Amino acid sequence: MAGEGQAIKAVNPATGDTMEPSFGGAVPADVEKACALAAEAFDRYRETSLEQRAAFLEKIADNIEALAEPLTERAHAESGLPVARLQGERGRTAGQLRLFAKTVRDGHWLDARIDPALPDREPLPRPDLRLRNIAVGPVAIFGASNFPLAFSVAGGDTASALAAGCPVVVKAHPAHPGTSELVGSAIAKAVEDAGLPEGVFSMLHGADHATGTALVTNPHIKAVGFTGSRGGGLALMKAAASRPEPIPVFAEMSSINPVLLLPEALKARGAEIGKGFAGSLTMGAGQFCTNPGLVLALGEEGLDAFVSAAKEALGESAPATMLTPAIHTAYDEGVAKLEAHSALELIGRGGESTGPHQSRAALFAVDHEAFMNDDALQAEVFGSSSIIVRCRTAEDAAQVLERVEGQLTITLQMDEGDTETARPLLPIMERRAGRILANAFPTGVEVSHAMVHGGPFPATSDSRTTSVGTLAIRRFLRPVCYQSISESLLPEVLRDANAEGVPRLVDGDMKIN
Amino acid sequence: MAGEGQAIKAVNPATGDTMEPSFGGAVPADVEKACALAAEAFDRYRETSLEQRAAFLEKIADNIEALAEPLTERAHAESGLPVARLQGERGRTAGQLRLFAKTVRDGHWLDARIDPALPDREPLPRPDLRLRNIAVGPVAIFGASNFPLAFSVAGGDTASALAAGCPVVVKAHPAHPGTSELVGSAIAKAVEDAGLPEGVFSMLHGADHATGTALVTNPHIKAVGFTGSRGGGLALMKAAASRPEPIPVFAEMSSINPVLLLPEALKARGAEIGKGFAGSLTMGAGQFCTNPGLVLALGEEGLDAFVSAAKEALGESAPATMLTPAIHTAYDEGVAKLEAHSALELIGRGGESTGPHQSRAALFAVDHEAFMNDDALQAEVFGSSSIIVRCRTAEDAAQVLERVEGQLTITLQMDEGDTETARPLLPIMERRAGRILANAFPTGVEVSHAMVHGGPFPATSDSRTTSVGTLAIRRFLRPVCYQSISESLLPEVLRDANAEGVPRLVDGDMKIN
Repeated sequence: MAGEGQAIKAVNPATGDTMEPSFGGAVPADVEKACALAAEAFDRYRETSLEQRAAFLEKIADNIEALAEPLTERAHAESGLPVARLQGERGRTAGQLRLFAKTVRDGHWLDARIDPALPDREPLPRPDLRLRNIAVGPVAIFGASNFPLAFSVAGGDTASALAAGCPVVVKAHPAHPGTSELVGSAIAKAVEDAGLPEGVFSMLHGADHATGTALVTNPHIKAVGFTGSRGGGLALMKAAASRPEPIPVFAEMSSINPVLLLPEALKARGAEIGKGFAGSLTMGAGQFCTNPGLVLALGEEGLDAFVSAAKEALGESAPATMLTPAIHTAYDEGVAKLEAHSALELIGRGGESTGPHQSRAALFAVDHEAFMNDDALQAEVFGSSSIIVRCRTAEDAAQVLERVEGQLTITLQMDEGDTETARPLLPIMERRAGRILANAFPTGVEVSHAMVHGGPFPATSDSRTTSVGTLAIRRFLRPVCYQSISESLLPEVLRDANAEGVPRLVDGDMKIN
Repeated sequence: MAGEGQAIKAVNPATGDTMEPSFGGAVPADVEKACALAAEAFDRYRETSLEQRAAFLEKIADNIEALAEPLTERAHAESGLPVARLQGERGRTAGQLRLFAKTVRDGHWLDARIDPALPDREPLPRPDLRLRNIAVGPVAIFGASNFPLAFSVAGGDTASALAAGCPVVVKAHPAHPGTSELVGSAIAKAVEDAGLPEGVFSMLHGADHATGTALVTNPHIKAVGFTGSRGGGLALMKAAASRPEPIPVFAEMSSINPVLLLPEALKARGAEIGKGFAGSLTMGAGQFCTNPGLVLALGEEGLDAFVSAAKEALGESAPATMLTPAIHTAYDEGVAKLEAHSALELIGRGGESTGPHQSRAALFAVDHEAFMNDDALQAEVFGSSSIIVRCRTAEDAAQVLERVEGQLTITLQMDEGDTETARPLLPIMERRAGRILANAFPTGVEVSHAMVHGGPFPATSDSRTTSVGTLAIRRFLRPVCYQSISESLLPEVLRDANAEGVPRLVDGDMKIN
C-alpha cells in the first residue's frame, strides 16, 4: 500500500542516480492497518482448501512471470545485478511458489494424526484424539537486498508462509522499492482474482528501522521472517522477545561457510579447486549468504597450486557493482581492516573498479595459530572476501571448526583417499552447520525437499529451521489437538472420510491415500 | 551428582516436618562439570542406533518401575499427593519412556528425505541431497513440582530429549529432592548398563534461582525444557535470549483452561456437568496445568442446576494437602484477592482444612461485563479455584475467548443441538489453545501421537510445540542436509540400503519400509 510517510526512491548503484517514481513510506497507522487486515483475513485464509490455496500460489507465480522483462530490468537498475541472473532468479521465484503449491496439495505438512478412541481400555478409556497443524497467524516478512526476487516480496519466506495459511505483511527492502512494488502488485492481483480477503497480503515501504520495529511489535503479528545482517536480525529478535507476547523470529543472518581442502584432493586437484573456488567467491559480487569466506587448507602439498590458480582467477575477475552504496562501503571497510591486519597475508585482489560502487574481490592467508588467536577474523565481510587458514593437520582444522560460530554450510573438497580424514570431522560439521557438502561450492542453493538453508546461531536465529526448501513451511505452523470433537465440527482433513486424501498417522502408523 | 553447595532437605507438606537426608546443592563448578560432560557425551550418544537408544529408554522405564513402593512413598511424603495417584504417575512415567522407545524405532522423527541427483537437468544439474534430523545438543530440563514423576527427572521433557539424542542435565525440583535422587539414580544406572558415556544424564540440586540460571546460560546447553510458573518461565526465556548464542526455551507456564457450557447441554445436563466440573477442579488439589479455572456459561437455563451441583460437590470435597507451603500460601492469597473483588460473587468453598498446607476449593461467579473490564480476573490461581462468567449470548463468550491469553485447552460442553452455536467459536478456540475438547474435562492428558499439551503464549513459550506426546521430540531436533556426501560417510539412515528401515521422503514421496 502507498504509505503516508516519507517518500522512498531507489538509487541505481551502477550510476549513483536516484530513480523515479517515489514510493510512500509507512507511518504507524499504515502498519496497524496492514496488520489488522491480516488478522481479519486469517481465519478465512487458513481454512482455504488445499486445492484453493495451491492454485492461489500458482497464480502468484504466473503473475510474476507475466511481469516479464520490465521486472528484471527494474531489478537490474535497482540492484546492479546482471539481467541474466535476475531472469534466472525470476524463474526460481516462480518455481518456488509452484513447489509450495505442490507441497500444499501433498498435505504432509499438516502432520495429521488420529489416535482412535479406546472406550474399553483399562484403567481408563482413551478419547478420540486428532491433530493437525494450523497456521500460526499473520507473519511479517522482510525483503532481503541480495535476492530482489527470490528472497524478497514473493520469495521463499512469503511462499512458505502463504503455503502454511498465514497472511503476510511484507516490509519491502528500501534498496529495490520499484521491484517490490511490481511483485507486490502481482500478489495483490492474485489475492483479488482468487476472491480472498485483501489482508492476505500487504506490503509496506520504509527506509528506517521504525517501520520494521512497528511491524514486529504489532500484536497481530505472530512470527517474523528475515534475511539480512546480523545486527538487523538481532534487533528484530530483541524486539520480538520483548513483546508482551513474545513471537518467534526466523532470521537468517551471518555465515562464512568454511571450505575444507583435504590433503589428497589438494594434492591431486589444487589448481582446479582454486579456480572453482574463485568462481564461487566472486559470483554475484560475493553477495550470497553462502559465499565461501573461509578456506581451511589441510597440508601443504598442492596448496601453492590452489593459491596460484585462485589468485589468477581473482585477478581476471571483473569488478562488480554491489547492491547498494552502503554495502559497498561496508565491504571496502571490511577488506581494508583485513589488509591492515598484521597476521594476514594478501594473496590477491580482483580487477580494478571501472565505475561507482564496484567491489574488488580479496583473498588473504593466515597461519592456523594466528587465526585461532583472533576471533575477529571469523566475522563475515559481506562480499567477495575470503581467508585461507593454513592448517598443518586435520586436528588444526577440527580446532577451527570447533571455534567458528554456527554456519549455513561447510564444504569438503576431498578425494577417495581423504575419506578417513573426513570421518572424524563430520560430527563437528554437523554441530556447526545446516548443510554439509562435498566437491561442490556452497553458493547455489537447490530449492527442494531435502535442502536446509539454516544452521546454528548466528547463521540463523533458530537452528531447527530452514528458509529454503519445502521444510521452510514448518516455521509457520503449530499443532492443534481435537479431543472427541464431532465429525461435523472437525476440519475436513481430520474427518473419517479424508476427502482431500492427506497422509495421516493413525495410531502411530502412516496411512497414505 | 552431589553438589558442593548448600544442602537441600525436603519438607513434608502434610506435616511441615523437614525430611532426611540432605542433598548437596550445586555450585557453579558442578553446573559446568555436568554441562561439559553432556557436551562430551553428545556426539557418541546422538549416533547410537535406533535400537540401542530405544532399549536404553526401556531400561530406564524398567529401573523406575523396579524402585516400586519406596519411590511412591517418598514422593507421597515430599509432595502430599496420594500414593494411588503416584502409583498411576509412575506407570505413566514408564509408559511415556516406552512410547518414546517405540517412536525412536519408528524413525518418523528423523524426517529423512532424499532428493536424488539429476545430473542431466537443464540449465543446471541437481546434486544428491539428503536430510535427516539430528539432536540439538545437551538440554537443560527443570523438574516440575506438580508431577514429581511424570514431569520431573524422568518425565516427558527428559524422555523426549533423550529420544531425540540429546544428553540431559536435570535441575531437580527442590520440593522433591529425594524422589528426584531415586529416579536420577535409575537413569544413571541405565546409562552405565548401556555402556553410554556418563554425561548422557546428570542431575543437579539447587534451592535458589542461581543454579537454574547458570545451567541455562552455560554455553554447552542448546535448549531448555521447563514446566512451572509464568514468572519462572519468563526468567528462563530472558536468560536464554540474552546469551551470546540465544537458545530456545520450551516453557509450559500458565493456563486457565476455559470450559464453555453451551445452551442445550446446560439446559439438559446442568447438574451432571456441574458435578463433573467440580471433580475436575478439585482433582489433585487443582494442581494441574489443565485445571479448569474459567467457566463460560452461555445462557441462563440450567445454570442454577450447574451452580448448585458444583457448589454441593465442592462442599463435599475433602481439603487436600498442596505440594509445597509456598504454593499453598500463593493459593490462599489468590483466593483471598478474588473474595475481596467487588464484582465477584462467591459460590462455594471446599471443606475446612484439617491439617497444614491444605487447600479449600473455591468457586466464584461474575457477569460478562465485569469480567471483560478486569484482565486481572484471568490470572491463573494455581489450585482449585475457578470463576464462572455469565454470558448472555455466544457473542459474549466469543468476546471472552478473544480476550483471554493463550491456553493449553478450551473445552466445550455441548449437545447435538449446540453444534451451530459451537461452529463460529471453533476458529477462535483454535487460535487460543493447543487442545480443544468436547464433553470431557481438560484434566487428564493422554500420552499419545495426536496429543498437544501446548498452546499460544503464555500457555507455552512456543505455540509450535507440545510437551506431552510423541510430537514433543521435535523440540529437540534440527535438520542437517548432506549434499553429494559419499555413501560411506553418510549416516546409516540416509544410505541407499536404509538398513534401519526408516520412512523416507524420496523426491517428495513418502516411502515406508
